[in-house]
Order: sequence, then structure tokens, then C-alpha cells
Amino acid sequence: MEIKVLRNVLEANDAIAAENRRVLKDRGVYTLNLIASPGSGKTTLLERTLDALKGEFRMAVVEGDIAGSADAERIGRHGVPVVQINTGGDCHLNANMVRSALQNLPLEGLQLLFVENVGNLVCPAGFDIGEDAKVVILSVAEGDDKPEKYPLIFQQASAMVLNKIDLMPMVDFDIEKARRSARTTHPDLPIFELSARTGEGLEGWLDWVRESQRRYC
Amino acid sequence: MEIKVLRNVLEANDAIAAENRRVLKDRGVYTLNLIASPGSGKTTLLERTLDALKGEFRMAVVEGDIAGSADAERIGRHGVPVVQINTGGDCHLNANMVRSALQNLPLEGLQLLFVENVGNLVCPAGFDIGEDAKVVILSVAEGDDKPEKYPLIFQQASAMVLNKIDLMPMVDFDIEKARRSARTTHPDLPIFELSARTGEGLEGWLDWVRESQRRYC
Repeated sequence: MEIKVLRNVLEANDAIAAENRRVLKDRGVYTLNLIASPGSGKTTLLERTLDALKGEFRMAVVEGDIAGSADAERIGRHGVPVVQINTGGDCHLNANMVRSALQNLPLEGLQLLFVENVGNLVCPAGFDIGEDAKVVILSVAEGDDKPEKYPLIFQQASAMVLNKIDLMPMVDFDIEKARRSARTTHPDLPIFELSARTGEGLEGWLDWVRESQRRYC
Repeated sequence: MEIKVLRNVLEANDAIAAENRRVLKDRGVYTLNLIASPGSGKTTLLERTLDALKGEFRMAVVEGDIAGSADAERIGRHGVPVVQINTGGDCHLNANMVRSALQNLPLEGLQLLFVENVGNLVCPAGFDIGEDAKVVILSVAEGDDKPEKYPLIFQQASAMVLNKIDLMPMVDFDIEKARRSARTTHPDLPIFELSARTGEGLEGWLDWVRESQRRYC
């Protein structure tokens, strides 16, 4: 009985996710779902990315948080349309929440949509929201054992950002081990080592976003 | 219908948690539930704490992870009994998992039990496992906005550890803001600023553990 209810919830989610994907595809909006632990630097990476690509693409952002609108306020300062979703307690966005957000965004002419999921390495991996690709962000302050401990999201992600490399001299983080362990789960996973705070290493990531968007259109 | 099923699950969890609490109380085992994001330094804090308190208390550890036994192996090197729980995908421990772990630990004569929950700032806050107190750990690398964005766990915790203060010169973290925002949610929350890696500031935290355990007995 309980299993049936759960299955219905996931089936309903998948149906709405497919509808979101169709709505976005019809308008040519390439959509990235950014997933990471709390404090891995998702919002800062997004701010840098928006600033770097603002002359090239028309972009928008959906911000997912349990509570508050602090991230949407940060993003709003970069001159792109942004919608904040508050999940009220849920540890992930679902397709229905994103559908509501899409209804409140100017989709016509949009080329690139970033969805910043709730800070969590577990729950968001289980819920399709209609994105074209998932990106997992890991900061070197979190430790090199994370791909091994949270394999699902590294398996699902189309790219991995290894953030806060400016902290490398201060932390015990073995980059080779993290790379190897992510690629045991997901061979050929593109990995971009950068510091969203200082801007170091950002170009490889930006090129991946550019190329992914162009391949999509 | 769905709500009823969820309520049953939570009621069943609460009943088992109450039973765990009774089993532990009967034997005088003071139990702390450590909750934090992935990579905030829970395991390192635990290693330091075990080493510092090993002459004073008989201790044991329950390790919760989605997958793997890396943390239990680290803890095992410190000479205390440890049981690893793999949730298989769930983003939190529940009371039933902890009950199984208790059946595999030498509870007689034990004085202090640490349960390291799955790395997650959201889900573990919703599930009583029978602990006496929750401790939330936040690293300065995660950002000072976390108490505001994940209020429930800061409200529920009996103490907060602000970890990785050795990284302060390298990150934009406003300690006053984090303190203020945690205490808006939870006035009088004890906050311990320390670096589990270097050992700086550990004494205040150790004293809190000592006193909490003694008050319990």
C-alpha cells in the first residue's frame, strides 16, 4: 500500500517533468539543474556564470530553498529574471514546483535556464524536474570522500564542478582521489576545478555551458 | 490517504524512538545525534572528541551513511565499538535503523553514545532516533546564511559547533551574522567555535559534552 502511494507520487512527478521538458524544448530553453550540499558555492558560481555569459545568452534563474529569498535577491542584482521557490521543508525541488516557477518566468526568447536546487546531495538526485542536464558541485572544503559516499548524484550528473580550489592549501583534499572516485561511478564525467570566489579556472566550465547550450539548439 | 500513510510512518518511528530512549536510559547511556551537511567535519570532530575523552567515559559510535563504511573504519581506529548503518538511499537515519545498531553494540557500562547521522541539513531534523540531544555542526566554508536557510535543525539542536575556523582568513564568513541568525531561531543556543582539524577551541565543546553527560546521570 505504502509502496503504491510512493510509486504514484513518482509517476506524477515524472509526468509533470516530461511536460516541463516539452514546454522548455518548444521555446529552445536549455535547462541546467544545479545540485550540491549546503554551502558548496552554488549561488556564487551562478553569479559568476551570469556575469560572464550575459552578453551571449538570454538567461533566467529558479532558486530553490526550504525558506527565505536571500539567494533570489543575490541573483536579482545580476539583472536576470529570477523566481524563488520555498519548499517549506522538502529537501528537494519537484517537477510541480518548477512548473509553477516556469509560469512566472518570461520563457519566450530565453536560451539558458539555471535551476538551483535545495542544498542537499541526496534528495534532489531522485526527482526529475524537466531539466536537460544535472550539474553536481562539490567544494574542496567538503572532503574528497563525497563521490564515494553519495554515488547517485555523481552518476546522474552530466558535469561536476570542484569548487573553492583557492582553499586547497588549507584543507586535506586529495584531488586525484576525488576525480578517481567520481569517475569510478561515472566514467568520462567532465570535471571543472575552479574557484567561483576568485574566478580561477572558470573558463572550462563556461565553455562547457556554452557548448551544451549550442548542441541543444 | 497519503497523509494517513505518512502519519503512520512517523508514529511508528516515534514509538521505536521512545523505546530506544528507554533502553539507553535504563543503562545510563547519554546519546548525541550529530547532524550536518556533507563535509562539515562531523567525523573529524568525533575522532578528536573520542581521543580527548577516552580516559573519562566509555563510549561507542553509530555511523550513518547512504553507502560505504569509510567513516566506521576511521572511527574504529580510535579503539571504540562502532556500528555502520547504510541507509541505501535514505537521507536520514530512522529509529528502526538505530534500534538494529543498538542490538549490535555492548550497551552495558556504556556512558556516551555518538550517532553520526547521514550528511544532510534537512531530513535528519524530522526523525527522532531516541537521542538525548541533537548537535548541529556547521563549517565556516559553508557560509553564514545556513541558520537562516535551514532553520529547523538550528531550532532543534541543543548545541551548535561552528567548525573549520582555521579557514576564516580564506572565506567570507561573518561569525556575528551566523551567531545572530542561529539565535534568532533558537535563543541561548550554545555555540562552540573550533577547528576539529587543528584542535583550536575544542575545550568548550568537550566541557559541554562532559557536563551534559553528567547532568543526565
